[in-house]
Amino acid sequence: MKIIRYSLNPHTPPTATDSDPDVRHGDLSELPPEARLLPPCSPSKIVCVGRNYAEHAKELGNEVPQEPLIFLKPPSSLIASGDAIVYPKLSQRVDFEGELGVVIGKRARNVLSADASEYILGYTSVNDVTARDLQKKDGQWTRGKGCDTFCAVGPSILRREEADFKSFRVQTFVNGEKKQDAPVTEMLFDVNDIIAYVSAFMTLEPGDLIATGTPPGVGPLQPGSTVQIVIDGIGVLENSVIAQA
Amino acid sequence: MKIIRYSLNPHTPPTATDSDPDVRHGDLSELPPEARLLPPCSPSKIVCVGRNYAEHAKELGNEVPQEPLIFLKPPSSLIASGDAIVYPKLSQRVDFEGELGVVIGKRARNVLSADASEYILGYTSVNDVTARDLQKKDGQWTRGKGCDTFCAVGPSILRREEADFKSFRVQTFVNGEKKQDAPVTEMLFDVNDIIAYVSAFMTLEPGDLIATGTPPGVGPLQPGSTVQIVIDGIGVLENSVIAQA
Repeated sequence: MKIIRYSLNPHTPPTATDSDPDVRHGDLSELPPEARLLPPCSPSKIVCVGRNYAEHAKELGNEVPQEPLIFLKPPSSLIASGDAIVYPKLSQRVDFEGELGVVIGKRARNVLSADASEYILGYTSVNDVTARDLQKKDGQWTRGKGCDTFCAVGPSILRREEADFKSFRVQTFVNGEKKQDAPVTEMLFDVNDIIAYVSAFMTLEPGDLIATGTPPGVGPLQPGSTVQIVIDGIGVLENSVIAQA
Repeated sequence: MKIIRYSLNPHTPPTATDSDPDVRHGDLSELPPEARLLPPCSPSKIVCVGRNYAEHAKELGNEVPQEPLIFLKPPSSLIASGDAIVYPKLSQRVDFEGELGVVIGKRARNVLSADASEYILGYTSVNDVTARDLQKKDGQWTRGKGCDTFCAVGPSILRREEADFKSFRVQTFVNGEKKQDAPVTEMLFDVNDIIAYVSAFMTLEPGDLIATGTPPGVGPLQPGSTVQIVIDGIGVLENSVIAQA
């Protein structure tokens, strides 16, 4: 089963929570043609891991971290597959970052790595869109990572029981050209280690999203670009880029 | 009117949202004696400003920022007045930071500083509890600022119409001893400037909380400490500190 959220109301925002009466749940194979796809979860927080692939840390001139490097994206940055990424006027350098996403299934606090998989609902794709210039300038990554539309998620959640996360590859295409292609086994800290690390200080709630870091190959987007993140079994997360009005 | 949220169910967590049927709203003067006080708002995000008082930036050996320095605390860190701050085993240095909090009243996107006050519901007190050692070690402040119980808020929201924010002083007491005492007019970026800066990249939603930075005088807490943040008209935000079990 590929879990989706959608709305039959075209005006439902991608940030709609499950308490919104327009929000419906279903399976990707049953998406009504008139539906608007929503992000497949409604996270109370979006926890991200930086520099979790050695080759990506190196391509940006950074050291490989000794512990997971954690940052947050705000829920206001969420969009679904099919929504536009807005290139902000504040930035002159906006990058794609294709990532495996993990959706939490039950409250997790002080979870051991060996038990972490029980707390996973399933897997999705994330585009951790980044204004690289603002990220570097600010020191803290909140603005560079947290602009509206900078967290594309979906299209579906592949249930944990139907997936072997070690078999996933993250592929990113810009205008049809392959830019990233790596197995998630190259992560420095795997999904279970990340859940253990984060839940030691921050309680994870059902629906919370973890973006597990991007493999090498990141690069710029432009207004007019179309970017696709492809992970087998989850579907294609596709977004076009438009300039801020 | 001093807006509060409370529950008659003693098991309601401080992170309960307004969709929780146990959550009630009222005025601080009418709090039933058997009620459990909750944080006075249920923010979809907690936006914080670092180094927003020159004397505080200097006391930690930091430069005065040229633009507001923005970071996020997760909703899982919320507690109310009366709840315990848990001193995590991961840290050997946990500091209080008393701050003026601003609660957003309506959706704010690309708001001008001159119009910002219309988007404010009111003012509250925040203790931006910080594991100083983890903050320094990690680079990104997510863990140092984002541990469970590290965002004490309340006890009430003083409505914007009943307040002149320029008249506020932030006072912090630890075990009855005054540690911080400064007028908010010493902020480098005032409340309106912060709303304009943040809403230029991140849409603010009703109930969202902005912690506007701490004045000089920060210092350590210990298990057994009691810390109070006092801002006239809002009441006393009081929390005791306990060691992590």
